[in-house]
Amino acid sequence: MRIRGAGRIARAAAEALMEHAKLVEAESPEEFRQTMLEAARHLLATRPTAVSLKNGLLHSLKGLKIQLPGDGASADVEALRTGMIEAADRFIAFSNGAVAALAEHGSKRIKDGFTMMTICNSSAAVGVITKAHRDGKKIKVYACETRPKRQGLITVRELAAAGIDVTLIVDSAARTYMKQTDLVFVGADTVTAQGNVVNKIGTSQVALCAQEARVPFFVCAESYKFSMDTLEGDLVEIEEREPEEIADPSDFPGVKFGNPVFDITPAKYINAIITESGLIPPQGAYDVVKTLKEELDDTQL
Amino acid sequence: MRIRGAGRIARAAAEALMEHAKLVEAESPEEFRQTMLEAARHLLATRPTAVSLKNGLLHSLKGLKIQLPGDGASADVEALRTGMIEAADRFIAFSNGAVAALAEHGSKRIKDGFTMMTICNSSAAVGVITKAHRDGKKIKVYACETRPKRQGLITVRELAAAGIDVTLIVDSAARTYMKQTDLVFVGADTVTAQGNVVNKIGTSQVALCAQEARVPFFVCAESYKFSMDTLEGDLVEIEEREPEEIADPSDFPGVKFGNPVFDITPAKYINAIITESGLIPPQGAYDVVKTLKEELDDTQL
Amino acid sequence: MRIRGAGRIARAAAEALMEHAKLVEAESPEEFRQTMLEAARHLLATRPTAVSLKNGLLHSLKGLKIQLPGDGASADVEALRTGMIEAADRFIAFSNGAVAALAEHGSKRIKDGFTMMTICNSSAAVGVITKAHRDGKKIKVYACETRPKRQGLITVRELAAAGIDVTLIVDSAARTYMKQTDLVFVGADTVTAQGNVVNKIGTSQVALCAQEARVPFFVCAESYKFSMDTLEGDLVEIEEREPEEIADPSDFPGVKFGNPVFDITPAKYINAIITESGLIPPQGAYDVVKTLKEELDDTQL
Amino acid sequence: MRIRGAGRIARAAAEALMEHAKLVEAESPEEFRQTMLEAARHLLATRPTAVSLKNGLLHSLKGLKIQLPGDGASADVEALRTGMIEAADRFIAFSNGAVAALAEHGSKRIKDGFTMMTICNSSAAVGVITKAHRDGKKIKVYACETRPKRQGLITVRELAAAGIDVTLIVDSAARTYMKQTDLVFVGADTVTAQGNVVNKIGTSQVALCAQEARVPFFVCAESYKFSMDTLEGDLVEIEEREPEEIADPSDFPGVKFGNPVFDITPAKYINAIITESGLIPPQGAYDVVKTLKEELDDTQL
Amino acid sequence: MRIRGAGRIARAAAEALMEHAKLVEAESPEEFRQTMLEAARHLLATRPTAVSLKNGLLHSLKGLKIQLPGDGASADVEALRTGMIEAADRFIAFSNGAVAALAEHGSKRIKDGFTMMTICNSSAAVGVITKAHRDGKKIKVYACETRPKRQGLITVRELAAAGIDVTLIVDSAARTYMKQTDLVFVGADTVTAQGNVVNKIGTSQVALCAQEARVPFFVCAESYKFSMDTLEGDLVEIEEREPEEIADPSDFPGVKFGNPVFDITPAKYINAIITESGLIPPQGAYDVVKTLKEELDDTQL
Amino acid sequence: MRIRGAGRIARAAAEALMEHAKLVEAESPEEFRQTMLEAARHLLATRPTAVSLKNGLLHSLKGLKIQLPGDGASADVEALRTGMIEAADRFIAFSNGAVAALAEHGSKRIKDGFTMMTICNSSAAVGVITKAHRDGKKIKVYACETRPKRQGLITVRELAAAGIDVTLIVDSAARTYMKQTDLVFVGADTVTAQGNVVNKIGTSQVALCAQEARVPFFVCAESYKFSMDTLEGDLVEIEEREPEEIADPSDFPGVKFGNPVFDITPAKYINAIITESGLIPPQGAYDVVKTLKEELDDTQL
Repeated sequence: MRIRGAGRIARAAAEALMEHAKLVEAESPEEFRQTMLEAARHLLATRPTAVSLKNGLLHSLKGLKIQLPGDGASADVEALRTGMIEAADRFIAFSNGAVAALAEHGSKRIKDGFTMMTICNSSAAVGVITKAHRDGKKIKVYACETRPKRQGLITVRELAAAGIDVTLIVDSAARTYMKQTDLVFVGADTVTAQGNVVNKIGTSQVALCAQEARVPFFVCAESYKFSMDTLEGDLVEIEEREPEEIADPSDFPGVKFGNPVFDITPAKYINAIITESGLIPPQGAYDVVKTLKEELDDTQL
Repeated sequence: MRIRGAGRIARAAAEALMEHAKLVEAESPEEFRQTMLEAARHLLATRPTAVSLKNGLLHSLKGLKIQLPGDGASADVEALRTGMIEAADRFIAFSNGAVAALAEHGSKRIKDGFTMMTICNSSAAVGVITKAHRDGKKIKVYACETRPKRQGLITVRELAAAGIDVTLIVDSAARTYMKQTDLVFVGADTVTAQGNVVNKIGTSQVALCAQEARVPFFVCAESYKFSMDTLEGDLVEIEEREPEEIADPSDFPGVKFGNPVFDITPAKYINAIITESGLIPPQGAYDVVKTLKEELDDTQL
Repeated sequence: MRIRGAGRIARAAAEALMEHAKLVEAESPEEFRQTMLEAARHLLATRPTAVSLKNGLLHSLKGLKIQLPGDGASADVEALRTGMIEAADRFIAFSNGAVAALAEHGSKRIKDGFTMMTICNSSAAVGVITKAHRDGKKIKVYACETRPKRQGLITVRELAAAGIDVTLIVDSAARTYMKQTDLVFVGADTVTAQGNVVNKIGTSQVALCAQEARVPFFVCAESYKFSMDTLEGDLVEIEEREPEEIADPSDFPGVKFGNPVFDITPAKYINAIITESGLIPPQGAYDVVKTLKEELDDTQL
Repeated sequence: MRIRGAGRIARAAAEALMEHAKLVEAESPEEFRQTMLEAARHLLATRPTAVSLKNGLLHSLKGLKIQLPGDGASADVEALRTGMIEAADRFIAFSNGAVAALAEHGSKRIKDGFTMMTICNSSAAVGVITKAHRDGKKIKVYACETRPKRQGLITVRELAAAGIDVTLIVDSAARTYMKQTDLVFVGADTVTAQGNVVNKIGTSQVALCAQEARVPFFVCAESYKFSMDTLEGDLVEIEEREPEEIADPSDFPGVKFGNPVFDITPAKYINAIITESGLIPPQGAYDVVKTLKEELDDTQL
Repeated sequence: MRIRGAGRIARAAAEALMEHAKLVEAESPEEFRQTMLEAARHLLATRPTAVSLKNGLLHSLKGLKIQLPGDGASADVEALRTGMIEAADRFIAFSNGAVAALAEHGSKRIKDGFTMMTICNSSAAVGVITKAHRDGKKIKVYACETRPKRQGLITVRELAAAGIDVTLIVDSAARTYMKQTDLVFVGADTVTAQGNVVNKIGTSQVALCAQEARVPFFVCAESYKFSMDTLEGDLVEIEEREPEEIADPSDFPGVKFGNPVFDITPAKYINAIITESGLIPPQGAYDVVKTLKEELDDTQL
Repeated sequence: MRIRGAGRIARAAAEALMEHAKLVEAESPEEFRQTMLEAARHLLATRPTAVSLKNGLLHSLKGLKIQLPGDGASADVEALRTGMIEAADRFIAFSNGAVAALAEHGSKRIKDGFTMMTICNSSAAVGVITKAHRDGKKIKVYACETRPKRQGLITVRELAAAGIDVTLIVDSAARTYMKQTDLVFVGADTVTAQGNVVNKIGTSQVALCAQEARVPFFVCAESYKFSMDTLEGDLVEIEEREPEEIADPSDFPGVKFGNPVFDITPAKYINAIITESGLIPPQGAYDVVKTLKEELDDTQL
């Protein structure tokens, strides 16, 4: 599974589980449940640190908890199958709706004539900005290149295609252009229970520059990007990627490479986290996580 | 003249002036002086915003002020020729010595076991770090890639060739690695009379990250990088480079590019500026500039 | 309706609705409900941006949701009428009680010998300070004039009338007197779901000065001043008042005037928001707003 | 009662109430209830400002609310007695479990090779650090002496006994050693509803030094250390101890002594509060206190 | 002498001394010197705390130190008279030239399209802004009203008369409009040897707001506004003005009034002080004061 | 030599050199010079890191540079002897005068009714405070105990003996009492060319607390405490003292001890350094050091 973007990953996982549910053969509800859980665990193992993946699976697995007719194994298995398919479907619809709702909420912050900055390629952040443009506001965007993988190139293409005035800058120029920036919108890979945000490397530097210049900094994150495990103190594991993303190591004998894919933006540099339910103070993440824990039984996985 | 690095530019200018002085034919001291001034102005025009270039020329032009024998035009012309050659030579020697002295001063700050960070490829900063290594200190370096031109690749090659433990990181990872960094050393294109430092784009972000984590931030700058004109309020002009340095614009229809070559690090984020004379507080730049103005008569160019 | 102060506006709106309820003639419960809703919408239209007005109306409109006897139109209409009157009355009593409870909570923070600062004329903030005085604490107050309308003049009169040692200062002197200040208490027009506070122009400057000098800054705001709409990203609209409040424009040909009535104090400069329920961290506004949304069905208006 | 440490005090109070419940003779449930309440009030009076004491008592007094058999006074009294004993016991077990759970949560933040700093002698903070050591992580600790009573000496003994590499420093050296520190863990006497932490004098200075150097600062506090009264604005009373703790006043004629036992660390310098339920943002204290108020009826005491 | 503005006061003092020198009758150089010194002391006594007044007098009194012909009392007296007149004249010319030079230096910082903010009515600050406008730059200005005396009304008239786009705001709105401001220029009553600036009440609040939003803050001050006495630790005495400037005290029985005319902006909030010699870092004030002390022998007054 | 206090050390060194000069027998001026230099080097070796010691010796050694009569060895030797004695004497008188001048300058900052804080036992800081008291100002002082050697006990004795209202607090209470403090005065062991101050451990924490609460922080340091070597980048070596100063290591098996005698207060937390010449901005240290280098030829030692 080589999908990019926490939201896309979550939906893909739900879809995979749904497809699996359609095909699985089982003698008993127990066996069906077991098979689905195994499938979910298998999917989770492909990216054990992806919070949205885990949450997407848990949302879908709620389908295993439906009331069974109890009139024999095969009817019960079919009821579970339907439950699973519906739950996964519901999550996919919810996820797509969440991005739209988030764009609606966030775009209200953008006034006519405003200039935004973003980093990486967050569909949620792009959605917020595009919504403002579609609402007829005259806006401008600075998009950071986002080394090493340069996802900013996708962002500028998307924004330019939407007809938005967008300027590509290198990541190091964020502080220089911050003086002409009114608002920053970024995405999130994971939000911790303490309101810190794990996102593409460079995000926290942009946040620091925004803070220094009194520019509001907003994080766009659907609720399934909030990590329940961090409430118990778990650290979000940050993957170290291959040096080749930066340069060809064979050209640089004796040189080491440091390539962490994410960094952590502390809550104190964030004005609000924009979720499908609205703009919450970053410390409100604690509340979101508590609600998630009630809703999703994470002991299953 | 496509030379990289403010110090190298200054020395190249002195060299060019020296070569010119050797060849010029003149009927009178006046004519010789005029010719040399024209040559200097011509050189300056190639990079009108390069402060070290102007200062290197002014240092060399002091050769035109020597005592003339006064026993006839040709002897006087030859005296001026010798004066010019010696002055330019003196500046070149001084410049090379300054980088060495600066390395000596700065390296004293590096303790055994320390980790440094740097950005771009400053021969002065590399000199400081290499000196510490040659003195037998066990050190480690994080070098930022320095988009768009990636001068950090030169830095890691130089440091690795010197046997130093060096790690290449993308510019956006500076804040992440700052937590493991003891000292930052960067170079300077220009130092203003107010103690602000103009240097490669991204320098001020590294400074901000250093400040946030209580990591001392040092700027390496020989005195001829200090701008006399900024005392009178002149802004250091920051060149906007071609978009091609970032990406091929033809691949990105409708996208603009922002590519300023330098940014400005404010004095308040700088612990000391290391010159050939020692480590001065950034506000000491005012004193350096006043001394320069007494030494170099800048009304000539 | 030319009433000053968010609390007074809320109570006046409830009162108006109550009076209307007493007089309205209706054939059916439906008609009564419709008439009341129209009245509420009409009242809201007089100050569409006043959050406390909207909340006061919604609190009163809860009266329309009572259980009806169901034994015929006229009995049902009378039941609704009584419900409306009681609900509006309950809100007015609650509002008055809230100011008193808030004063009780806030005044506990004031120690004997303390000096307070305030800006504008907030009955809640004046209440807190007066309560401390009535409790026998020896206190002192600096009151800012609050240009352009100079509501500080009312504040000093009220405090002096209560026998409190009060000093009137111009708004620009807040930073100077902050060094002799122990606590700041201000009111609020609106509190956002993110814990930011919209209040009379100048409030955020006082907050900034308090922050700089480690002086605790408290906002006094009953829960009906919290804006539900800001959770969905709505910006609190800040009215631009007539230039005449500042100076006579005809005396100043060619001069423009900027006269926003409120400014926004960010959550990070606020130690606590004092509500009728106690002192909450500013980020607790998220919780207050969520509770309000459960309690008041705002889809009606 | 000369017990040190807020957790130990809470458990001792529950124990005392339990012992009392075992021995008390009462004619009626009413009399039993009354006697127990009086005992609780008596215990509370020994340290009226100790929040954990009050909360421990309230947790235990829940035993008075059990369903009575209602078949005669003596059976009812015995039922209450059992209820009280069980409730107190439950609290003691909960308290011990809370410290262990908290250690589990907090220790996840400690990475192999990390250096911690602590002040005073918090069993919760020591528990977090010791857990990391038992998990095989190679760690190092700087422990502040904690004048005037020097509880840091107990801490270094405990940590050294556990085989941990620990260094004793004077309180004034916290800023110097902060540069080599990765994480700070401290305990808490009381946590306010606004997320501020009352703890041994010096704690807030360590927090300030941590903030200055971007070092995460964690407070370890079981939920019964959260003060319900602070929600209503009550100030946590900070005891002024005898001068003899600092020096013999008779040796210093004419000299006054200032010896407050605690200071207050503001929420903004705290990364997270670690409770038995997990790591919460300091502002989450508001939520903890609201939950406590629902659970414990504090009108009884 | 009821003259407004530190520069105008200095020139008026020199003028008064010059007029006096023209008229004085003296038998001997000694008597002339004595008379002039007495006149200077008399002038100084009218505003003993005005630094520019003292410096203007000292500049003029240099005329008493000229070489005397020594050929008899009357010739010597006339030589002194001429010396005095010329010295005073020189100072007046220097002062006028200084304001112009300062405007030249400062205006270079203003780029086309920039928005400035100012407070009070500083001819130096107005000069800087007007120069930029005359140079054809399209600029905009926010001018603070400057309670209590409302000198901002003069500023907006001057700027509007010069054809500049100027907006009058109340002092409390500085933080709100700071987000749309590129540069701040203010005047100075006095600059201390440590680089702090004494200026009209409110200046330091504007500086604080500028700092918070990363907006450069410049102080315009000719060198004769630098206080030599502050080097020895003297505090600049800040006058407390009549309450009537704020409101009629008889309308406010029991109310006190606080009306300090100046406040102090700390060096750390100032990007540069613009003098006739250029833009110096605020700490360069130490150097300016040392030079003044060499130039002006201040033991005479 | 077990003398405490940088000033006392400098004077003792001059005294020792003077005594040596009185007794030395030498055949020639050369021999005398050599002997004195050796004596100076010997003295310096007792405390190689003491800057004031080195500067005191260099001040005294200026006596070796006097004009010799040149009429034979013995007259020349006596001339040198007299020169040395006079130079050493001059330095001792200068040093004593410097402390007095510094007290005069610094005490002007203390207003009637002010409260000061200090740490350790600096005769310069005590001098400033005592001067204000002798001038009839009603003042109050908080003195930090200064672990581990508790020099604060000496300070409170000295201040109480002088009749000053003084309160002893533990070092950790500095932040708590800072809220009631108007000014901080501390001494200095060494001032670096960059304006940083090396002083007793804990000084930088007090400075940080002062900064947080907008309390001016002053360092008292005579010019011979400024280190010339730091201009060339030399680090001030900070001695690690014996663990016994903190606790008896044999009572704490397995525990390490960290006991650095000094810490470093960065220039940015210092409002002014008070020298015998006045109050200079910390960055003015660069100027003081340059002047010292001109005055004292430090190549001799």
